[in-house]
Amino acid sequence: MASAPRKRKMLQTVIWKEGSVTLVDQTRLPARLVYIRCKKHEDIVKAIRNMVVRGAPAIGISAAFGLALAASNSRAKNPTNLMKELDTAYWELRSTRPTAINLFWGLDRVMNKAKTGTNLHEIKDRVISEAKKIAQEDIQNNMAMGLNGAKLLYDGDVVITHCNAGALATSAYGTALGVIRAAKEAGKSVKVIATETRPVMQGSRLTTFELRYDNIDVTLIPDTAVGHIMSKGEIKCVIVGADRILRTGHVFNKIGTYQIALMANIHKVPFYVAAPLSSFDLKSKLEDVPIEERRADEVLKIGKKRIAARGVAALNPAFDVTPPELVTGIITEKGILTPPFESSIELFSGEQKLS
Amino acid sequence: MASAPRKRKMLQTVIWKEGSVTLVDQTRLPARLVYIRCKKHEDIVKAIRNMVVRGAPAIGISAAFGLALAASNSRAKNPTNLMKELDTAYWELRSTRPTAINLFWGLDRVMNKAKTGTNLHEIKDRVISEAKKIAQEDIQNNMAMGLNGAKLLYDGDVVITHCNAGALATSAYGTALGVIRAAKEAGKSVKVIATETRPVMQGSRLTTFELRYDNIDVTLIPDTAVGHIMSKGEIKCVIVGADRILRTGHVFNKIGTYQIALMANIHKVPFYVAAPLSSFDLKSKLEDVPIEERRADEVLKIGKKRIAARGVAALNPAFDVTPPELVTGIITEKGILTPPFESSIELFSGEQKLS
Repeated sequence: MASAPRKRKMLQTVIWKEGSVTLVDQTRLPARLVYIRCKKHEDIVKAIRNMVVRGAPAIGISAAFGLALAASNSRAKNPTNLMKELDTAYWELRSTRPTAINLFWGLDRVMNKAKTGTNLHEIKDRVISEAKKIAQEDIQNNMAMGLNGAKLLYDGDVVITHCNAGALATSAYGTALGVIRAAKEAGKSVKVIATETRPVMQGSRLTTFELRYDNIDVTLIPDTAVGHIMSKGEIKCVIVGADRILRTGHVFNKIGTYQIALMANIHKVPFYVAAPLSSFDLKSKLEDVPIEERRADEVLKIGKKRIAARGVAALNPAFDVTPPELVTGIITEKGILTPPFESSIELFSGEQKLS
Repeated sequence: MASAPRKRKMLQTVIWKEGSVTLVDQTRLPARLVYIRCKKHEDIVKAIRNMVVRGAPAIGISAAFGLALAASNSRAKNPTNLMKELDTAYWELRSTRPTAINLFWGLDRVMNKAKTGTNLHEIKDRVISEAKKIAQEDIQNNMAMGLNGAKLLYDGDVVITHCNAGALATSAYGTALGVIRAAKEAGKSVKVIATETRPVMQGSRLTTFELRYDNIDVTLIPDTAVGHIMSKGEIKCVIVGADRILRTGHVFNKIGTYQIALMANIHKVPFYVAAPLSSFDLKSKLEDVPIEERRADEVLKIGKKRIAARGVAALNPAFDVTPPELVTGIITEKGILTPPFESSIELFSGEQKLS
């Protein structure tokens, strides 16, 4: 007889304890669940750059906590010097990765709050409490997003997801995988097909790990098998996360998302993006958003082992753009946005409640 | 000043020397170019099954040489016993892999020749010379295919290829990569973009190796980056190989081919298949062709290192089907087949020269 599934403690990715930030070291998964402790904002800079922490919301939260660390550690004797130190930390944190908007959103939100402080104590306090608030809201938003998205799913559905838009990409619970968790909590048994997501393999390493952690049915496929699997006609929908969504509905997300959206469109499989308000960039134009090009080694090697012949070049764009015409809906904490996105996002940016 | 490119000896994948077959051990590439020597047909069975040798034409040639080894090693005292031994070897070789048609084609061709022998010596002789003929014809066919296909390419063109349809997939020179080689020999500088081709990584391991070996410009991309790269509008065409082509024009090839063809179609990038006559199966129906499902470990691990969480299932279909409406042309040794394939293939199967 199979043992009853264990009910485990919720997987938390970014945890603040006065004076330090504890992060799941995502470079060590799935082999080991190891936490690292960051005591300085420079530790956070390094963790974001090396993808110890990754996923747009988790990056935003970690960066906000980076400012909290800078404030907490500051020995400045007056508000001007403290604000200068925070500003330095802000720019160091801001330069870690270029594409996910949550990084800038989290940092700006904390800095704007800092500016409302009138004395040393007040500034420090407001920076720390704003960062904590961002992390708390993230979990609440993910749960609300989960409830909204779970309405799209029925018992027995098979869902494809790409990369990792889960607990490990957020503070906890996840965006795309939050929808799966909410469906499960509503008593629906949903099966997940996770793509490997070369080159960093967030699908193999992180999505399979966290879904197994929560006893959710997950099957891994190579990125090459998406079209073939969709052609069998058994996929209910695709749900992915987002690193940035423009006013026009263009979705920046992990490399490979665009082609999955194309294939979904051709096979008439609905394609959903699950992302919080903090992933929306209502100002930038399509051509202004930088797509991070990471080092060729991630493609030429796996871990430390070289897989390609010597002397070979590689392209390693970390993100791609999915145009709005390929997106069926955007699941947010306020409701599900539907096309035409230009107007639903405008409505959404003005209103609190959508549907 | 850069040193002049070396002119190397042509890379040969399957080499017959009386009484033994020498194969490039493709599981060791690109780290080391190691040859293994097969003295019994059982060695060939193992080499095909373990993908020491892979690629439809190379499998067909190796299997034919497997029969040559069986004949050469036979101690049978009369034709009946020799034919029994050959028949046993035939079925062992035939059961190694199910999808590539060249395996059955090569084996049947040698067996049919064996049946024309009237005494022990004659049977052995015919088996061995037929296998050698298949290997020699393969190189000639690849060169003819190269000349036909090279007409499609111009100086400066960028071509995407998937998996490895090169010298390492044939006896030498290659099918899809034979077209690239012929273009280069005609003085055209063509750049190749090679997809990694998870899970077995024939793109990273083999295509980059053999193109660098011949000083051909090659850039590696993850399988997730195909759509993104195509959307930039700089790709001249896609050229891939085939494991089996049906009378209807359906192309069985390495997993991931179908989705590349879909993306090519959407981005208006011509999609070519380069394959010899021996890859055509004019008898089977679409639903009758088995798609090999390989062990989950190829997806769950890379080499010996586990990358996915424990307890996770994986799907690992080795091939997929590209429907004829996504194929711009099929480059063969007799000319380039164009749609409608149902009639061009019919014409082609009746005629020797096409265009």
